Amino acid sequence: MKNINVVLFDDFETLDAFGPVEILGKMSNDYQICCLSEAGGIVTSRQGVPVAVQSFEEAKAAEVLLIPGGLGTRSLIKDQAFIQKLEKLCQQSSYVLSVCTGTALLAKTDLLNHRQATSNKLAFDWVRSLNEEIEWVEEARWVVDGKYYTSSGVSAGMDMALGFVVDQFGRSQARKIAFEIEYLWNEDQTEDPFYQKKT
Amino acid sequence: MKNINVVLFDDFETLDAFGPVEILGKMSNDYQICCLSEAGGIVTSRQGVPVAVQSFEEAKAAEVLLIPGGLGTRSLIKDQAFIQKLEKLCQQSSYVLSVCTGTALLAKTDLLNHRQATSNKLAFDWVRSLNEEIEWVEEARWVVDGKYYTSSGVSAGMDMALGFVVDQFGRSQARKIAFEIEYLWNEDQTEDPFYQKKT
Repeated sequence: MKNINVVLFDDFETLDAFGPVEILGKMSNDYQICCLSEAGGIVTSRQGVPVAVQSFEEAKAAEVLLIPGGLGTRSLIKDQAFIQKLEKLCQQSSYVLSVCTGTALLAKTDLLNHRQATSNKLAFDWVRSLNEEIEWVEEARWVVDGKYYTSSGVSAGMDMALGFVVDQFGRSQARKIAFEIEYLWNEDQTEDPFYQKKT
Repeated sequence: MKNINVVLFDDFETLDAFGPVEILGKMSNDYQICCLSEAGGIVTSRQGVPVAVQSFEEAKAAEVLLIPGGLGTRSLIKDQAFIQKLEKLCQQSSYVLSVCTGTALLAKTDLLNHRQATSNKLAFDWVRSLNEEIEWVEEARWVVDGKYYTSSGVSAGMDMALGFVVDQFGRSQARKIAFEIEYLWNEDQTEDPFYQKKT
């Protein structure tokens, strides 16, 4: 089995994590979801979902590392020990997918430097301010650069996860999953309905 | 605080529960999410998310009861003790929202008899076979009848949750939430992109 490790923390945004989990969990029987936090135990999402998690130390190396955003990222970007451990998890993973302000955490690792990335619209200026070495793409539903996938806000994580399925298993498998979950998939990563030109 | 009680069980479908939780959790500061299962402890979604839950007995009466579907419903429909407890939880709740095959569980309580309801497309015939006293609506993204809201498959639960926000707080509040989570909301409950006419 290949692991899809989901990095959780208190006040993570529920759908940032569990939208992509729904899709990645249907990708193939060869993958299993594993929810992690730095210390293990129980972490609770911003909307109040308590998740039982393994600690970073207990985690196996992942094929896919999923990093949600949420209010909890506002303090975590200042937690150097957490960022260092996250960087190590990223280095041990074949692919890293971040959603919304999950990209703020990734931006603090320097792993995205000189790569293209995006983040959600309402916090874009804040996320960009964390690392000017990243080639920020403002108008994108999601962006792929090497092993790093970054998406716009919350729901965009599901579109990105389906894009990841395309890259791993082909478009027909992604469309099959979208059909099964009755999801209207925005297939074009450059089509960003929530981008608003600054005037 | 008003409770939004989420009924979980092993092999519930992740997004059935946590799509609506994302939206209902942003509805107003007067509500809190509470995850429940019959026995309490840890229940794990079909996609592998372990959730720490209260038992039905520990639960407070809810303003909103949310019932996801998933593979776990296939055995639960035969569990008379579970269905009786679920019926009691529904009676104690001001509103009951079911997603996908969560409606199969609700259909076993008789509370939907002579009411309109829908369910997901791929399991529709199975769900309908459980209770012929319900006025099944095949072509609908979601259906409202009295205090009961039922939706089509998985992702349709998010559209229904936003419809519930409209009924409680008005359309502008629902659109504000959809915008914040960058969600392309299918606002029209009669528009069902996954309905296929039988030939």
